Amino acid sequence: MDALKSPTSGRGSDGAGPVLGVALLGCGNVGFEVARALRDPLALAALERQAGARLQLRSVAVRDVARRSAQLAADGSAAALPTFGDDVLAALLRPDVDLVVELIGGEERAGQAVRAALAAGKAVVTANKALLAAQPDLFAIADAAGAPLLFEAATAGAIPVLRALEVSLAGDRVQRLAGIVNGTCNFILTRMADDGLSFEAALAEAQACGFAEADPAADVDGIDAASKLALLARLAFGAEVAPSRIDREGIRGVRAEDIRRARELGLTIRLLAIGERLPAAGDGRGGERLDLRVHPTLLPSSHPLAAVRGPMNAVWVEASLAGPLMFYGQGAGGKPTASAVLGDVVAAARALLARSGGAKVAPRPACSTLAPVQAAERQSAWHVACLVEDRPGVLAAIALAFARADVSVASCVQHGRGGGPVELVFVLHRAREAQMARALGEIEALPWVSEVASRLRVLDDGGGSR
Amino acid sequence: MDALKSPTSGRGSDGAGPVLGVALLGCGNVGFEVARALRDPLALAALERQAGARLQLRSVAVRDVARRSAQLAADGSAAALPTFGDDVLAALLRPDVDLVVELIGGEERAGQAVRAALAAGKAVVTANKALLAAQPDLFAIADAAGAPLLFEAATAGAIPVLRALEVSLAGDRVQRLAGIVNGTCNFILTRMADDGLSFEAALAEAQACGFAEADPAADVDGIDAASKLALLARLAFGAEVAPSRIDREGIRGVRAEDIRRARELGLTIRLLAIGERLPAAGDGRGGERLDLRVHPTLLPSSHPLAAVRGPMNAVWVEASLAGPLMFYGQGAGGKPTASAVLGDVVAAARALLARSGGAKVAPRPACSTLAPVQAAERQSAWHVACLVEDRPGVLAAIALAFARADVSVASCVQHGRGGGPVELVFVLHRAREAQMARALGEIEALPWVSEVASRLRVLDDGGGSR
Repeated sequence: MDALKSPTSGRGSDGAGPVLGVALLGCGNVGFEVARALRDPLALAALERQAGARLQLRSVAVRDVARRSAQLAADGSAAALPTFGDDVLAALLRPDVDLVVELIGGEERAGQAVRAALAAGKAVVTANKALLAAQPDLFAIADAAGAPLLFEAATAGAIPVLRALEVSLAGDRVQRLAGIVNGTCNFILTRMADDGLSFEAALAEAQACGFAEADPAADVDGIDAASKLALLARLAFGAEVAPSRIDREGIRGVRAEDIRRARELGLTIRLLAIGERLPAAGDGRGGERLDLRVHPTLLPSSHPLAAVRGPMNAVWVEASLAGPLMFYGQGAGGKPTASAVLGDVVAAARALLARSGGAKVAPRPACSTLAPVQAAERQSAWHVACLVEDRPGVLAAIALAFARADVSVASCVQHGRGGGPVELVFVLHRAREAQMARALGEIEALPWVSEVASRLRVLDDGGGSR
Repeated sequence: MDALKSPTSGRGSDGAGPVLGVALLGCGNVGFEVARALRDPLALAALERQAGARLQLRSVAVRDVARRSAQLAADGSAAALPTFGDDVLAALLRPDVDLVVELIGGEERAGQAVRAALAAGKAVVTANKALLAAQPDLFAIADAAGAPLLFEAATAGAIPVLRALEVSLAGDRVQRLAGIVNGTCNFILTRMADDGLSFEAALAEAQACGFAEADPAADVDGIDAASKLALLARLAFGAEVAPSRIDREGIRGVRAEDIRRARELGLTIRLLAIGERLPAAGDGRGGERLDLRVHPTLLPSSHPLAAVRGPMNAVWVEASLAGPLMFYGQGAGGKPTASAVLGDVVAAARALLARSGGAKVAPRPACSTLAPVQAAERQSAWHVACLVEDRPGVLAAIALAFARADVSVASCVQHGRGGGPVELVFVLHRAREAQMARALGEIEALPWVSEVASRLRVLDDGGGSR
């Protein structure tokens, strides 16, 4: 096993550095693009130049061996064809394979394969977000084996944000991040904003365009965004948090009129996955805390995240030295994913060579130093719409309820006038969720208030500087 | 000398991997932040974890030794103080220094230092854009010596775009990039757009805010942007192009009324540094060409680059697999620059260890395969304003001039009416610069045309797909 921790295949005869063997597990849309690049003379030369090593695709594990091997053989490359087979473990455990690209998807077979590869000290590149969320012990296995585990494609598709967090910001300190990491939700919210569609109509359009699944829950309820946030938080904050423990609110409750009214106030709505380092709780004990959450968020329309439209993704990062950064691109799709996988292949090759040169693969830090924030303690500015009867005294009663909860009103606008109910829209200064819950409970109990029709958090710029 | 090509200082006694010695040349705002991070226990632990090695700041070269060494000693770190001195070569040629951070600035002393460090096989991290532009043979020296040369901070400040181009997109193919890489120009254009300031008034404000030098030529004439474009093109296209050979047009000629009228058409103006891979010339000979240029550019106000405001920077990249990407952040300033330098320190440490492990530092490809594009052949869509007498026949005469040059008119709007001259604003479909020059020459010679008051190129989306 120790022998496998060094590149297995000796030096190339032409002085191009060591040779690293690659196994490709799964050869669908993404895998086929990856295989093609590893066999295309121009693309391979660029990859090898950056890797500092020769890269040889040696084995491909795929169910439909005959079809895929014939397709790859037809790509016109003069390179020797890799060995095709349907046995995943056989493909990756070959002694001449140093680097394993897992594109099987799913959790069971993929998990077995990644586990076996890491235990053997091989580098693993994966795009499998579900696997990393379900089996987080893979990170510890990688650390213990000194095996590089790279997963750029598992969050925000083609966008190289994970490498930026790990390498480029290694000497900096991330204070906050806010990501648009679910293209389906962003498509729906953009359509609602642009054409006044209802949530239901926009979702139907997303399904018709192939952006949303028949069961849209994972997208529109924020489940997918939470699992991406868990991966981002691991690299940005060293946090080990299960996606299921991240508070989340999806976009089903967003109304077209909220979007329209927010726009009149210069605000745009996005589903954000937010991670934020917060100072110790009020009692000063327990050290810094980490707040992770997913919810629809209003932000100034001039904010760069507001320019992220349709199915595009972006991650906003605030770091102590760098200040604000944003990374924008396609969050899904075969080719964008292949681009990210190929970048990881280069980085994994570099890591294998550095390991041969004595680099220590240090365990990632545990997150025990960052306590989670209780939801009730969380602070935001707010945008609240109340349906009320149009009569004197209502505004005063509501304002009093806010005041009793120590919530400060930044602005109030009445929409509608005359016989029927009208809508009062409040923008509120920063307040804790517990304060808001108290105020809104009191408001909903008022005699002339029929409903608190929406409550939306507003992104503030306090995250980076508090 | 060969001995220096491996980490010099042996293994750390605590099993934390090899130890790499760091020399810091120059200790101003940026250098002091870098030194602090390399001595701060938390920041250093994060850097070392990512580097896979221990990092020891061993020597600092600075003019005012007494003052800076006292300041660093007062930082509260328990780490041993590095050796301070004013002899740059002595600081970097120590056998226990593996990695040199050049923050001296200027070209002469910095060039000598970088040259000496690379020749000795040491890794070099620099933020010195002027040096790399003036002495491009440094890249060949680094290649020949197998020495890592990193310069993330030299383009677009804190934004980790160079590493993305090198590593993350190694298996992809950049078709086009467009960067807002001069914060001064972007501040001026944003102020002109927001408040209708003239160029002169906005420039004076930029100077008062410290964003612009007393002699603003390097910024507003596009010289700074061209030298950053040369560095971006090196990594995106493998191009070796002297900044002086990049066609450039600055922002002195941009009028507040052009900005206002463009906005009515849904367009925003930015100074863009553009690099674009183009197919072979019409005769099919000579292979792909590379077009590099800096000029004020109109783009749709919904484009993410239009949301880059004030002194912020961003680089838009279109790649074959990844599709569109954008990288946004601060382009200048001591702390942002330090953040980028520290990321490069980690990457340089990894590269040194990979070299010990046998990685081949392959020479960057020469750009002889990408022929430059002749300016006259360059194509854009256009926005043209003509001052004319308000009388019948003028529009027809101008339209005929465009038609004779085979330039197609997308729209025409007349501004003003009555006695005095009026302004005719044309939006034109894609045309070559030579066609435009011919049409505008003919138009300026027409009897009722007093002036072609402005001609601005419009960014199209043809770059990635042609």
